[in-house]
Order: sequence, then structure tokens, then C-alpha cells
Amino acid sequence: MPFFRKIITVTTRHEGEVVNLTRQVATVVRESGIQEGLIHLFVRHSTAALTTIEYEPGVLSDLSRALSVLAPDDADYAHNRKWGDGNGRSHVKAALVGPCLTVPVTGGELSCGTWQQIVLLELDTNAGRDREIVCTVSGE
Amino acid sequence: MPFFRKIITVTTRHEGEVVNLTRQVATVVRESGIQEGLIHLFVRHSTAALTTIEYEPGVLSDLSRALSVLAPDDADYAHNRKWGDGNGRSHVKAALVGPCLTVPVTGGELSCGTWQQIVLLELDTNAGRDREIVCTVSGE
Amino acid sequence: MPFFRKIITVTTRHEGEVVNLTRQVATVVRESGIQEGLIHLFVRHSTAALTTIEYEPGVLSDLSRALSVLAPDDADYAHNRKWGDGNGRSHVKAALVGPCLTVPVTGGELSCGTWQQIVLLELDTNAGRDREIVCTVSGE
Repeated sequence: MPFFRKIITVTTRHEGEVVNLTRQVATVVRESGIQEGLIHLFVRHSTAALTTIEYEPGVLSDLSRALSVLAPDDADYAHNRKWGDGNGRSHVKAALVGPCLTVPVTGGELSCGTWQQIVLLELDTNAGRDREIVCTVSGE
Repeated sequence: MPFFRKIITVTTRHEGEVVNLTRQVATVVRESGIQEGLIHLFVRHSTAALTTIEYEPGVLSDLSRALSVLAPDDADYAHNRKWGDGNGRSHVKAALVGPCLTVPVTGGELSCGTWQQIVLLELDTNAGRDREIVCTVSGE
Repeated sequence: MPFFRKIITVTTRHEGEVVNLTRQVATVVRESGIQEGLIHLFVRHSTAALTTIEYEPGVLSDLSRALSVLAPDDADYAHNRKWGDGNGRSHVKAALVGPCLTVPVTGGELSCGTWQQIVLLELDTNAGRDREIVCTVSGE
């Protein structure tokens, strides 16, 4: 069974940014030459996460608000107190959404739904970060 | 390494419905003939999600309430304002739970825990939807 | 494509415990002999979950508080009323975080970020549990 790996790197600009990775991931699928299989994505950072969502500004701001219910900006974070960091909330959100996503490949293409985009959530409070997403395509 | 694919389609009836997919997924595992491996599940929609849970009515209603903490019915959703839709909360919940799940296959069977069922969460406000779950079994 | 399976068992001591599995998972990767591929982890229980996080006591307590926003200790759980259990909140948290995680293997090692540890969340209210994590390594 063939196996293909590639790393996508994206530079994010601000906390709460949602990066639409769908096009780049679809390109990796095509480069792999795999027709039927799976693509696994993993973000190698503890303050970013991967999921799928309709890439529409309204939905994205609604998601951001929901994450703030879990980890409000103004809560008293033990992580912040200990390290003088301001990103306690970033770690919490990232752990709950999760770092990985696996999507089917059919007919040599990503098999997402019509309104279902693959996104990176930049959750850190520090801007201008390079984020690595390890892509692994397997199948036949 | 063998590889097997099948699509399960379920018709949901109402928002908040939790569909127990365990039996159908176990059937796909048996049809695949794979003894040791993994089954990956992916729901191809942006307002539904997959997870595991004890399929007991009390737990299911407790889960529904927890999701409403994240995305309350009466919040002011930017998605709803923009599109006249009522399903802003559905998108948010689906993005947080996630569209995919991978479960081990051992001895030709699903290897879930005793109280651990595979479920689809219907999160959309519109009833009567067909939901496609792409199943991919790999292994040996 | 080679394929390797091993079960890790950990004994947890209390609700809210976060077990750092990274070293044990790295050992499984080395035992597999697989150089490039994926390791899939699945916890076979409905009141435990897997994710990645920076294993720092402050962050871990911040995560615990965020989970309590979703499923507060003192909420009225239908599961508890029906079964006389006290672990309604445990089921809810586990279903939202999820039972599985897949991490890339590169150069025969786990490919996590520097501050990104693999953890088991013990969410049950009953202490002293044995938790099985099924590990599946595939690749080449």
C-alpha cells in the first residue's frame, strides 16, 4: 500500500485566526497519486488545532465565541501565573479541539462535504507563528 | 495490506438526535474480512459529528445540555444573521466534536469498550436529513 | 506495509488525573520498527479520553476547569438520577474530548511538537481504574 508524506507550513497572524487549509491539503492528495485511501493531518504545536467547518465568517466568529465560553479571556489561568505567559486559554482550547484530523480520499480527491472545509485554528496569543502540519496519505 | 471502503447512510429526524452506529459499523468490519487493523469513520457534513459514548438516554441528554453550554439556543449567531439560517449553533458544536473517529479492529471485530458505542450526533436544526458516513477499513 | 499492535495499560488514581503517556507510546513506536508512518491510540472506556497538551501542572488544572464549565460537578445529570451513579459528568467530558488520537512517526520516533505531550484524561469519579489504550502502528 503506497504511503506519502509532506509537511505544510502556514504563517498565522493573530489569535483566533482560522486558516482554510483545504486547497493545500487537496494538492498534497494529488501529489501523492493515491486514489482511494486516507489523509491524516497533525499540527505539531500545543496552541493550535485542526477541525472541519463551513468557512464562512459568521460561523468562524461563532466558533471563536464558543471557545471563549470554555476558556474565557479574563479567567485566572494557573499557566499564566506560573510562567508569566498569557496563553493559558490557548493551551486549553487546543487540547479540547485536538491536533489531528483524518479525511477520506476517493477518486484521487478529498472526500469532504460541500460545506466542510479543513481548517487550522490559531489559538495562541502571540502573533506571527509558523505552524507545521504533517500530512500522511495512505491507500492505493 | 488490504483496504476496504463502504458508505453508511442514515436518515435523521431531529436536532439533537444521537444515532447508534455501532451495529452498522461492526457489519462493515465483518464485510471487509480484515482481522487486525483500524476502521476510520468520517461524516461528510458540517452540522453533524462522530464520537463514542455510553448509549443510555440519561447520558445522551446530559451530552446535549453540555453542547448547549458551548452554543446556546438563544445566543446571537453571526451565521444566522448573515444567512437567515437557524443553524449557527449546529456548525459550532460539529466543529468542536469533530467529523472523524478511528477504532481498532481485533479478531475481525470492533474493539470498543463494553459501554462505548459509536454514535452520530445530528446537530442541525433542520430535520429529515440523509447523513453519509464514509467507512475505511485497513489492516491485514 | 508493516503493522504493529500493542496494548498499554495504566492504573489511574483519581478523577481529573492526566497521565503523560508520551514515553510509553514512544517505546511502542520503537518496538514496532516502523520508521515512517502513524501511530493510532484508542482508549477502550467511556469515561476516559485522549488528547495532546503541554504537560505542565498549571495548564492541566486550567484544562480541568474548562471541562467543568461543560459538565459542572453540581449539575443535575439524568445519568446519575437513573443509575445512582455519580459519573454523568465523566461520560459527557469523555464524549467531547474523544477516545482516539493519531500521531505521525518520522525517523522511527513520535513526531509531536516540543511542548506537545500525549495524555490520557481520567474523567471518572471512581478511582483506581485500569485503562487500556490500544496502540496501532502502521507505515514502512
